[in-house]
Amino acid sequence: MAMSTKNAYNAVMRNSVRRARQRAAYDYKTVHSVFNAASIYHVAFLPADPQDDPFPTILPMLGTMCSFSNPTGDLANTPLDIYLHGHAASRLMKLPKDHPDGLPICVSAAILDGIVLALAPFHNSCNYRSAVAHGYAVPVTDEKERLFAMTRITDSLVPGRWDNSRNPPTKGEDRSTGILKVTVETASAKTRVGGPSDDKKDLKDPEVAGSIWTGVVPAWETLGAPQASSENKVIDLPTYLGDWRKSTNHGREQYANAAVNLEK
Amino acid sequence: MAMSTKNAYNAVMRNSVRRARQRAAYDYKTVHSVFNAASIYHVAFLPADPQDDPFPTILPMLGTMCSFSNPTGDLANTPLDIYLHGHAASRLMKLPKDHPDGLPICVSAAILDGIVLALAPFHNSCNYRSAVAHGYAVPVTDEKERLFAMTRITDSLVPGRWDNSRNPPTKGEDRSTGILKVTVETASAKTRVGGPSDDKKDLKDPEVAGSIWTGVVPAWETLGAPQASSENKVIDLPTYLGDWRKSTNHGREQYANAAVNLEK
Repeated sequence: MAMSTKNAYNAVMRNSVRRARQRAAYDYKTVHSVFNAASIYHVAFLPADPQDDPFPTILPMLGTMCSFSNPTGDLANTPLDIYLHGHAASRLMKLPKDHPDGLPICVSAAILDGIVLALAPFHNSCNYRSAVAHGYAVPVTDEKERLFAMTRITDSLVPGRWDNSRNPPTKGEDRSTGILKVTVETASAKTRVGGPSDDKKDLKDPEVAGSIWTGVVPAWETLGAPQASSENKVIDLPTYLGDWRKSTNHGREQYANAAVNLEK
Repeated sequence: MAMSTKNAYNAVMRNSVRRARQRAAYDYKTVHSVFNAASIYHVAFLPADPQDDPFPTILPMLGTMCSFSNPTGDLANTPLDIYLHGHAASRLMKLPKDHPDGLPICVSAAILDGIVLALAPFHNSCNYRSAVAHGYAVPVTDEKERLFAMTRITDSLVPGRWDNSRNPPTKGEDRSTGILKVTVETASAKTRVGGPSDDKKDLKDPEVAGSIWTGVVPAWETLGAPQASSENKVIDLPTYLGDWRKSTNHGREQYANAAVNLEK
């Protein structure tokens, strides 16, 4: 049975979080924030013939969440689509041709925020933000929408990079770029914050509690010092690149550290 | 048609890398190294009834690759299994009951090593290490194998943590822990290293090449300063934790930076 909430994705059997429900969220803001903070998406699709080959396949891909019809819409109030890109001749780009209503896929993104160490291994955990979306993928053919998606995917790597690159794409580049748009049917997020939760019995045992360090080792993806290519002719690193690196590193480090003390 | 190579997983249609084949690898060492360096696995399974629900589902999970029958075997010469853990009552732990020969699943892991910025957005890329495995998942019931898997999964978070924790698990903890063993049928890895590859035409255009910075922004997962829990009684951070953090950060940073200059 579908649960419909304003500014949230539907929760149905398929995407309902059943374990540790207090960590689940279905609202646009949480789901979109996770997908747009994650570097790599994992995209699953079914085998062409399950009788012949029983396995689903996952491909790691780059992508972003945005809305072509409402490009400046607020993350928290606008349902967004997932755009994925790959080579036009790749397997995933060709598969939707056999599915006129779209290829049913699942897209997953996860960010590790910390390693949570408890007295007993059973209570070890991770702080993380994850999101999973189910939807139908179709190739984008409209030229304006393709350009919009390419711009957003490029800027999801480095904000402002599209405008600071050689544009527009050549005809050959355009032809070789496959863009899939995933219209989200259901989506959910799962997040953990805080420190370890140990058993009272362990906490009261002086031999256990007195000898085992417990706490959180925060984790985040760091961007290192940019290394110019051998062909690079621009001596000074552009400001937008340096600023992006600094603010991204700062924001990620701050989140991972702050997550340790957030209420579970 | 299966291609069988010594110390490598089979390459069949399902797992053969078709785009950028020079980035593909099937050997044990590469596949195992990626899975054992990645923090989070993405695990896909098919819908119970595709007529009723057409979508595959992905769950982010913790796990590790190892061999119970050959626990000290060399990573490069021993086929390994994937062990996943979760709550015994979770959906994925219960699903294999309907599949006496194992639940067909796909496990994916990806590590971002850098953002590759070219003159044209089309040539932007990422340095990464990724691996995808297909196999049959069965719940582990043998007590010795369960303990082996729990130990390895714990130590995959922080080496040595199992022995430095409260052991053994209580009966309740053991009952609540679900362990899946995935016997790998096929697996492949895909890796990118190096700097951007631009079109000659762009490189020769002084307006383009003279105004756009190109190169790589290395990226790696950093472990921050450990934060003790409010219940922690061990004042000094144990050496194994501090050493692990330092060497992990050092190794990851070094790899991401070195990857920029490796031969594509």
